[in-house]
Amino acid sequence: MTRLVVAVGGNALAADGTFEAQRRRVAATAESLAGAADEDDALVLTHGNGPQVGNKLLEVEAADTPDRPLDVLVAETQASLGSLLGRALDARLDRPVSTLVTRAVVDPEDAAFENPTKPIGPWYTEKEAANKPFGTKDVGEGDRSYRRVVPSPEPIDVPETGAVDALLEAGEAVICGGGGGIPVAPDDDGSESIAAVIDKDYTASLIADSVDADRLVFLTDVPCVYLNYGTDDQQTLESLTPAEAREHLDAGEFGEGSMAPKMAACARFAESGGEAIIASIDDPGAALHGRTGTTVRPDR
Amino acid sequence: MTRLVVAVGGNALAADGTFEAQRRRVAATAESLAGAADEDDALVLTHGNGPQVGNKLLEVEAADTPDRPLDVLVAETQASLGSLLGRALDARLDRPVSTLVTRAVVDPEDAAFENPTKPIGPWYTEKEAANKPFGTKDVGEGDRSYRRVVPSPEPIDVPETGAVDALLEAGEAVICGGGGGIPVAPDDDGSESIAAVIDKDYTASLIADSVDADRLVFLTDVPCVYLNYGTDDQQTLESLTPAEAREHLDAGEFGEGSMAPKMAACARFAESGGEAIIASIDDPGAALHGRTGTTVRPDR
Repeated sequence: MTRLVVAVGGNALAADGTFEAQRRRVAATAESLAGAADEDDALVLTHGNGPQVGNKLLEVEAADTPDRPLDVLVAETQASLGSLLGRALDARLDRPVSTLVTRAVVDPEDAAFENPTKPIGPWYTEKEAANKPFGTKDVGEGDRSYRRVVPSPEPIDVPETGAVDALLEAGEAVICGGGGGIPVAPDDDGSESIAAVIDKDYTASLIADSVDADRLVFLTDVPCVYLNYGTDDQQTLESLTPAEAREHLDAGEFGEGSMAPKMAACARFAESGGEAIIASIDDPGAALHGRTGTTVRPDR
Repeated sequence: MTRLVVAVGGNALAADGTFEAQRRRVAATAESLAGAADEDDALVLTHGNGPQVGNKLLEVEAADTPDRPLDVLVAETQASLGSLLGRALDARLDRPVSTLVTRAVVDPEDAAFENPTKPIGPWYTEKEAANKPFGTKDVGEGDRSYRRVVPSPEPIDVPETGAVDALLEAGEAVICGGGGGIPVAPDDDGSESIAAVIDKDYTASLIADSVDADRLVFLTDVPCVYLNYGTDDQQTLESLTPAEAREHLDAGEFGEGSMAPKMAACARFAESGGEAIIASIDDPGAALHGRTGTTVRPDR
């Protein structure tokens, strides 16, 4: 049996338009994942939540109802996106699917709190962004390149991996770690909220490590990772060691908030002996079985 | 080992005021539950979501973000309230706590869709209610006695009870069935939404039956169930058979939307051989061990 942890990018489930458009994206993702997984693959699925959690923050701020802090909104996206994905997958997969609400322990003193980098919610023009009552950053291209940004500390631990393991042992597929997980302090007892959105790539790597996954797979909108992306020198990376991945990361070769965290998560997982892949969501079958994309593993 | 399914009323977790007030209520509930459960009790916890899901509907309607249907909002309350309760309980209990997102299968032809009865969200005056763009009903007392009402069909099945069982076997306490569960059609594949909020009492009874619970406990704001409540003839019910409970239900002795569904859920669980209790949340220790409140069991 091969244990797979698969991370689906926020874009693959994005809701730029209507809810029904998002629902169709989710169904298509579930369809291809169900077709890609072998009967004897144990499957853990995690997903992003950037667009969705940003929208929620806007909703809470707009309405005359009791406010809820960001960590609780992250939890909500785990259930909204997670259960949509779970329902679609459950109907198509050869085994039951569980959606688990999970946390991510962070260091409350993490330097990330001083420097918000994680883009969430809608895109704005420079002028719109300047008038928003929250912090924004120029994170894209074109006219509407600004988004709200929030702190994104690195996760240290996912406390619920014992439950994930128990569900896998019972033959369930498990959706967890959505939106990176609910950010909590090491001594969390629910009495304090941490205003952050964790990168789901790092969380996926932690989960993969904890449940002894054989392979960690990032499904993205590109077929593999490149050096000098978009230039004449563009070079495809097929296979790297964790040390090589670290070198490229240190040289700033990959996009912050997009490919860089994925590569760092891959390096981390490969350093503990696993195989990590970044590949296109268009052919998840090949990706889940390690036959495409960019691979990071201990021995090249 | 005693398997307990405990249902906590929406009021016990209500957010009439600020989020911090709700957080304190949740912490107090977790504190008393953790103190009440024996080391060898297997514990499943479910909770209401009436105030919270109604607030969410107002938020989605108020904001300029993509709408989400009611079933998805129910899912969100499972994670927001569920994870708050889970975090508070996890810190106080002698075992890990899992929060699972769960569905409730309903009949799309259920007569309940023609007659919305489930009150959600804030309370309104008669005049305020008349001006709302949604259906309201006079469901309380005093000046602000109106609330929005939505259909509440009876749940037929909770598909995730296999996962609940696996988690209990692994020594986890499990939070599930929150807000009655995500309403879905029998052939659900995530492509359609059912606009309803299920009564968590019926769902708790279904879960208790599926996981072979020894005892189903409803923690409420009253110490037990009465006949002729609030009159000179008020009579305490200490112990009933399911048949006796059904007689009182048929005679309309209990409040619709409050005690009636609890009694019906108790009768149903006792009919399949279990013991069901309705008791005060003020002494959960006595309630969880069957030493207080109103008991419905096969033999009186």
